[in-house]
Amino acid sequence: MKIDEKYYRTIWPTHGAEAHKNDAMLAVEIIDQTMLPHRFEIKAVHCLEEMVTAIKTMQVRGAPLIGAAAAYGMALAVQSDASDIHLEKSAQALLLSRPTAVNLRWAVNRMHQHLAALPSEARHSAAWQEAALICEEDVQMNHAIGQHGLALIQSALAKSNKNTLNILTHCNAGWLATVDWGTALAPVYAAHDAGLNVHVWVDETRPRNQGASLTAWELGQHGVPHTVISDNAGGHLMQHGQVDMVIVGADRVTSTGDVCNKIGTYLKALAAFDNQVPFYAAVPSPTIDWTIQDGLSDIEIEMRDADEVSYMSGLASDGTVQSVRVTPAHSHALNPAFDVTPARFVTGIITERGVTTPSRLKQRFE
Amino acid sequence: MKIDEKYYRTIWPTHGAEAHKNDAMLAVEIIDQTMLPHRFEIKAVHCLEEMVTAIKTMQVRGAPLIGAAAAYGMALAVQSDASDIHLEKSAQALLLSRPTAVNLRWAVNRMHQHLAALPSEARHSAAWQEAALICEEDVQMNHAIGQHGLALIQSALAKSNKNTLNILTHCNAGWLATVDWGTALAPVYAAHDAGLNVHVWVDETRPRNQGASLTAWELGQHGVPHTVISDNAGGHLMQHGQVDMVIVGADRVTSTGDVCNKIGTYLKALAAFDNQVPFYAAVPSPTIDWTIQDGLSDIEIEMRDADEVSYMSGLASDGTVQSVRVTPAHSHALNPAFDVTPARFVTGIITERGVTTPSRLKQRFE
Repeated sequence: MKIDEKYYRTIWPTHGAEAHKNDAMLAVEIIDQTMLPHRFEIKAVHCLEEMVTAIKTMQVRGAPLIGAAAAYGMALAVQSDASDIHLEKSAQALLLSRPTAVNLRWAVNRMHQHLAALPSEARHSAAWQEAALICEEDVQMNHAIGQHGLALIQSALAKSNKNTLNILTHCNAGWLATVDWGTALAPVYAAHDAGLNVHVWVDETRPRNQGASLTAWELGQHGVPHTVISDNAGGHLMQHGQVDMVIVGADRVTSTGDVCNKIGTYLKALAAFDNQVPFYAAVPSPTIDWTIQDGLSDIEIEMRDADEVSYMSGLASDGTVQSVRVTPAHSHALNPAFDVTPARFVTGIITERGVTTPSRLKQRFE
Repeated sequence: MKIDEKYYRTIWPTHGAEAHKNDAMLAVEIIDQTMLPHRFEIKAVHCLEEMVTAIKTMQVRGAPLIGAAAAYGMALAVQSDASDIHLEKSAQALLLSRPTAVNLRWAVNRMHQHLAALPSEARHSAAWQEAALICEEDVQMNHAIGQHGLALIQSALAKSNKNTLNILTHCNAGWLATVDWGTALAPVYAAHDAGLNVHVWVDETRPRNQGASLTAWELGQHGVPHTVISDNAGGHLMQHGQVDMVIVGADRVTSTGDVCNKIGTYLKALAAFDNQVPFYAAVPSPTIDWTIQDGLSDIEIEMRDADEVSYMSGLASDGTVQSVRVTPAHSHALNPAFDVTPARFVTGIITERGVTTPSRLKQRFE
């Protein structure tokens, strides 16, 4: 989508997707999302190890983008050593970089299987092609999610006889979380680009503030009206009719429609349910984990560094990005990164195949 | 309660409560809570205008403490001019300093009526006596709340056959929010001092971080085990059996038991209800507004400065307290300060008279 009037994707190979054909050594470029919203910086990633670091430190984040980054990580790995053993090692290194994201596993396994079936001399070129294909598929899926979500927004606007539809989202499932378009925000961009009036309530999303920093920034850059709120405010706004729809992304959705997403999503789903506000999760199908039925008991929740709670970073008055401590020196903190919203609170799941209820999710993909 | 092993209250007249008897010009001392948890500073308040500022800027905050501060504000006003007209003006100035806190109105009206009935020459001494009495009554009420809550904790521990009871609280309804003991935390201090094992999950409480700063600090100073969590985490902890009880304070409780408290309280009540975790509001009776039945429609919610959402302050690496911007420069924010938890989600209300269900609240005070 647009940054300062110019169109970008979140990840791309240097010299473009075709350069691998003349066997050039390629790098991958990413937007360093840890610098946003205060600095827009593009970073070159030259090898597998740098890509693992970029995923671990969340310079790239968001389930679909992590999958794309992992695919390019495999391409960078093959570029340096196309042997079976290095392929295996590289896949393992990438799988360990973020435990929760199912897209990561999906993309790494797809690359691994595809390349292992080829003679090692054919792997370099094939790896860059397959990674580019994974990115294209992501863009197409998200565009389709946007179109299906657009229909929901159009009918909601028609029913509500309001001028503007207020959509609440949590964390960042925008285009910065994908290769382009986003998942939860794809319907918002589709509606905005179609000339419909949408306004987005942006949950700050502590502790990492992906809403306040990334979602607010990307909506602002694309010109979508939005307002940042604390994570505590959404329920109150729903009680007073100021939220017409909730759309979130997901890091993993079970075959039964339980939604594992950024910590705090469950609380918004409860408030939406209590106030009859429709609650949707927008996910490309690779985010669905068909091997899991019960999200609450079967999904391991990543515990991240407690300092993400104890410290907050932002732009200081001197123009530098600084981290400040918000808790007393001797107080401990706990930082579960995700929670699971049981399917009973989910109105619908928006995939590239359309909008389905959690209970119909399985048959939609049969 | 204890700060660095020494007992304090949150507000007191200089030279002690009796000094007014020899007609000395008094000041009031407060703990400047805007400096916590990074700096412990005591501030002298010399006149009505300084007290209005202290309340507006939240150097003193918390419904019961605001009431006590307003009472001393009236005493400072009378000290400079004991006339009827000045009494009236001073009451108005205090009533406008924070719209939501019902204790403020209660304390100002009580002081105003008491003093207006006296000849002006008797008002100076009477004002200091009445303000001190309001403080004593607050301490006694909170101590009683602590004892009633202690019984709840004892029976919960007995039922749970756990070693430690995990109590979640939101914002700061600790002793810093009152003259002493606190409301929501009075049962915690009573249990801790009685040798019971309690651990407190402390909601950070954005945007002003009263949990991360004040609640964590006062629990730590008194030696109560606690862990700071983001406001998003409580629901997940409840889903996994890590929260045994929720106790919050309130800025206002309706006669029907609706609880108006810091923004985000409603979301925790929904999660507690969904996970069968008992949810209590601990309030001294002056916090109950008998004139209101429907909290959602009848309580005006204070909108505070959006910069409280856009900026976050904390301790920088150089040891200074700094404010950093967390949102993009051009993104707007909205900052509703309170929400209303409907009585149907409230297990019980703990007052100085005991624990009652919302539906029985009225008859308990008849």
